[in-house]
Amino acid sequence: MHLSQPYLLFLGDAPDHLAAKTARGIHHWRPDICVGQLRLPGCETTLGLPDMTVEEAAAHGAATLVVGVANRGGVIGETWRSVFREALENGLDIAAGLHQRLNDIPELVELAQDYGRALHDVRHPTEAFPVAHGVPRPGKRVLAVGTDCSVGKMYAMLAMERTMKARGLKVDFRATGQTGILIAGGGVSVDAVVADFISGATEVLCPGNDHDHYDLVEGQGSLFHASYAGVSLGLLHGAQPQYLVLCHEPGRAHMRGLPGFPLPDLEDCVDLNLRCARLVSPDARFIGACFNTSALDDDAARRVMHDAGERLGMPVVDPVRGGVEPLVDRLLADG
Amino acid sequence: MHLSQPYLLFLGDAPDHLAAKTARGIHHWRPDICVGQLRLPGCETTLGLPDMTVEEAAAHGAATLVVGVANRGGVIGETWRSVFREALENGLDIAAGLHQRLNDIPELVELAQDYGRALHDVRHPTEAFPVAHGVPRPGKRVLAVGTDCSVGKMYAMLAMERTMKARGLKVDFRATGQTGILIAGGGVSVDAVVADFISGATEVLCPGNDHDHYDLVEGQGSLFHASYAGVSLGLLHGAQPQYLVLCHEPGRAHMRGLPGFPLPDLEDCVDLNLRCARLVSPDARFIGACFNTSALDDDAARRVMHDAGERLGMPVVDPVRGGVEPLVDRLLADG
Repeated sequence: MHLSQPYLLFLGDAPDHLAAKTARGIHHWRPDICVGQLRLPGCETTLGLPDMTVEEAAAHGAATLVVGVANRGGVIGETWRSVFREALENGLDIAAGLHQRLNDIPELVELAQDYGRALHDVRHPTEAFPVAHGVPRPGKRVLAVGTDCSVGKMYAMLAMERTMKARGLKVDFRATGQTGILIAGGGVSVDAVVADFISGATEVLCPGNDHDHYDLVEGQGSLFHASYAGVSLGLLHGAQPQYLVLCHEPGRAHMRGLPGFPLPDLEDCVDLNLRCARLVSPDARFIGACFNTSALDDDAARRVMHDAGERLGMPVVDPVRGGVEPLVDRLLADG
Repeated sequence: MHLSQPYLLFLGDAPDHLAAKTARGIHHWRPDICVGQLRLPGCETTLGLPDMTVEEAAAHGAATLVVGVANRGGVIGETWRSVFREALENGLDIAAGLHQRLNDIPELVELAQDYGRALHDVRHPTEAFPVAHGVPRPGKRVLAVGTDCSVGKMYAMLAMERTMKARGLKVDFRATGQTGILIAGGGVSVDAVVADFISGATEVLCPGNDHDHYDLVEGQGSLFHASYAGVSLGLLHGAQPQYLVLCHEPGRAHMRGLPGFPLPDLEDCVDLNLRCARLVSPDARFIGACFNTSALDDDAARRVMHDAGERLGMPVVDPVRGGVEPLVDRLLADG
């Protein structure tokens, strides 16, 4: 899946910041590929980008209308559809990470065919993937793994990408979820592929590369999440990472969506991920941890990261508070 | 997915015993639900069942034509199609575990609609499954896990089912692969569901049950298989097994399909499966191991099973050579 750039970000009738968090993520990490925003009556948020109609955006070179808003109720209403029609008529592709598929709306499919445009449902892979082969491949790969879902794995890898690019390194962020795919302009929603091909799809996502090239692979779920651990293990094997980053949010009462399940010990999480990673990558090791400490004050955050760093013997940072330089240093020191 | 019984087993033009191994498995484990076999010119194997036309089988009460032969080249040819048409016209459903879907052949779909019959592609689940919840549920569950793929997990669970039924116990075999589904008349091909729902589909497959009821869950793959481990882990979590059976074929040079990968140590396989199972089933334990020793002579087989039993501290049997009584004894002794 490859999305044409630059983007016009569609905020729809987003009632608040949270509803537009996909657009916010794209704009935060890729401001250079966002030509403008399109808001409908009722929209109560802004990215600070110029407001544009589809026609204006097309005149500014926009190639894809990206749906950056979570739709309420999961249904694409008529006010959205008229914008989508206008986008196709003006030569733009459309990309969305919604549950409802653009490709399930006949009038859009027909219009896209008429105008030779693409409808990208990034949550729903349509490619046929091979079975994973597990053969060692060149290039360096870093994978974010977590104690739980939604602890900042995508953010951690994007922060590392930005830091490593600033240092002039050869690096690519490899997206495995819908927001990451919209940000990167490509990737595979691994939790949506057929189970037999989780690892195979991941091998395709981050293929062999130059020996001094780094792939930073977005993680998904957790080996300790009773709903999704299969995805995490298949991703771990397919990514064949020499380097791992532990992602964690201190203070969670239980695993996301599973009230009966406490979070794993950090040591246990490190140990099980290494044990499983070494099936395909015998020298796999952790270069550090990224904590989401947004719920803590400065002092508490510093203390919890310091303590964890002592226990685990690795740098622990909050990418939002202080960046990921110590992890990049550790990565480069390693070779 | 639920298949109507009894079956007419379709052997097609199977050139040898191996090509008809699906039919052979169904007949071996469920002779009571097989009314006859249908062979085409060129078929070089037999199950010893009465040869019947579709019409004759219908007169004997057959409810489903089951495709028990692996088709060469993956394509359903005209000689097969005419039998399938005849089956639908005579009031039979059709069930197949082929890569090519019956439901992708328009003339069959149309005919099935006309006659109110079902086309079951057991390799391709069509249900929408929920995300796994991991909540402890009543009933006892046994799961077969393996050092590798194709080491006898289905056979082990079916052998236990037969032994336990003979002892009057409440027991169900729960199928997770296409041959198992045809044998059981239902189940879920877990490696073909969308990755996010591996565990959820397994929870649906073996739901809560009476405290003295046993579900015997067919395993898939191995936590040590670099292509498929994600499926195995999702299945392990979804099955929530209190009891595990280790399946293994001594003497394999490498993991199936992966020349670079040696088989895991038995101890390592036991340990990792327990560690992962205990996320959802804190008291999970092994009740024994089933070895496929078909490549060994009697003495060598006895020796390798004895040695493994000593090392692992559990009964080790070959279900084909000597049955699974020691495993059932251990299971019942446990409560």
